[in-house]
Parts: sequence; C-alpha cells; structure tokens
Amino acid sequence: MHAFATTLSGPVPEAEAAVRDALGRRGFGIVSEIDVATNLKNALGIDRPPLKILGACSPVFAQQALEIDTAVSLFLPCNVVLEGIDDVTRVSAVDPREMMDDPRFVSLAQDVAENLQAVIDELAVNAPVPS
Amino acid sequence: MHAFATTLSGPVPEAEAAVRDALGRRGFGIVSEIDVATNLKNALGIDRPPLKILGACSPVFAQQALEIDTAVSLFLPCNVVLEGIDDVTRVSAVDPREMMDDPRFVSLAQDVAENLQAVIDELAVNAPVPS
Repeated sequence: MHAFATTLSGPVPEAEAAVRDALGRRGFGIVSEIDVATNLKNALGIDRPPLKILGACSPVFAQQALEIDTAVSLFLPCNVVLEGIDDVTRVSAVDPREMMDDPRFVSLAQDVAENLQAVIDELAVNAPVPS
Repeated sequence: MHAFATTLSGPVPEAEAAVRDALGRRGFGIVSEIDVATNLKNALGIDRPPLKILGACSPVFAQQALEIDTAVSLFLPCNVVLEGIDDVTRVSAVDPREMMDDPRFVSLAQDVAENLQAVIDELAVNAPVPS
C-alpha cells in the first residue's frame, strides 16, 4: 500500500487545517469527511487514537476521469488520512496509480499522484516535526 | 475494475433508499455521501446525469481491518455508486478484494466482498428493472 506521507507537529485539528489549505492550493476540495475514531466509539464503544479520513477531489481531474469511464467513481475521492499519534499527526494520501491500473487512466493517475505528492512535500516543509 | 452491480428501476433517490436499507441489513452504515453531479455542476458548470457516491462502512469489519494496519484507512469506506441512466439507476459496489492485495487482508476482504455481493443480489431480486 504505497502512499504519500509525512508527519506534522501538533494534534489532528491543527494538521487538518494545514492539509486543507495545501490541498486547496492544488485545486483539491474536500468532498467528504469521516471521523473514524468517533464513529467506532459510537458504534462499538471502542477507544482509539484520532483517525480521520478526508476525501479530496479536484473537479477538473474528476471530470476528466469520468469522461473516460464513470466506473472510476468506485475509487473517488482520493483519501487523505490524518492519524493522531501522541502529539504529532501522520498525514497519508493515497497513491491513485495503485487504485487505477486500467491503462486508460495511467496518464491521469500520474497527474493526480504528482499533485498529491506536491501537497505532502509542501506540508513536510512548512510544518515538520521538530527534531 | 471489478464491481458488484445491478440496475434498479426508478430514479436515483428511490434506488438510494433501497440501497441504504439493504446495506443496513448487512451491518453497513453510510459514513459519507458525495453528490458528484451537483459538485461538478457547481465547480465547473458541467451538466451530467445523476451520480452519487455513498461510503458504506461496517464498524465491525472496519475495526478488524484497522487492527491489522491503520493504513487500510486509505481505502475506506467501500464506495457504493448510484448512477442515473434515463429512468433506471445503476448500482455498483466496489470489490474490496481488488483494493487490498496485501495478504494480511485477504480473509477480511473476502468477508466484506461476500456481504456487498449479498446486498447487490438482494437489490436485484427486490427491485429489478421491469423486462
């Protein structure tokens, strides 16, 4: 499971704000938001560290993908995961090249992957964990 | 892109109610909901047929998956796609066995796949397109 990932200082809400900003600058909106830890607490009574899934979607890339085959919606949006670990937050973005091995999507998946990689790289530069 | 799929009579909102009921009976809640057609209309001004992504998640299966590796959250929830085509609705559910080729998830992905297949089979029996 290859992903683009970095670790940011601070708890999940703080990291989430930075992640949303960085995604927005690359044309990705957040189209879904799942608080996994709270959902599992409510459903099963289980306590676990903060875990949130943001669904990131670039309308331009999504439209291009849907024009190729609407079946791509089985793999949309791109998940960006925020995981609280002690006082830092692990941020991971799915690599769309792993999800879409259909040859018709190779070029588009590469474009999306490069943008998600750039988002993670920017986050890593701007808000690294203090060494 | 293998998926479990069927076509139901009626427009997307009617099919969505049946899909939510059928998923609920198998322990899947809807944890996210993306109206792709409306989003693209708002973002790009493009008109397209109704297209909606429901994020289906079984808390029991999700917890089991996260216990194996929290990186699985890159692939959660399971997308169930509703696509309006004229006066019928195509319903497709992702096959989680295609998303998770990590050997640690084979057994769990098989369990989830069987449940999603059962949901689609049930929908196909209860609300088929009139022939």
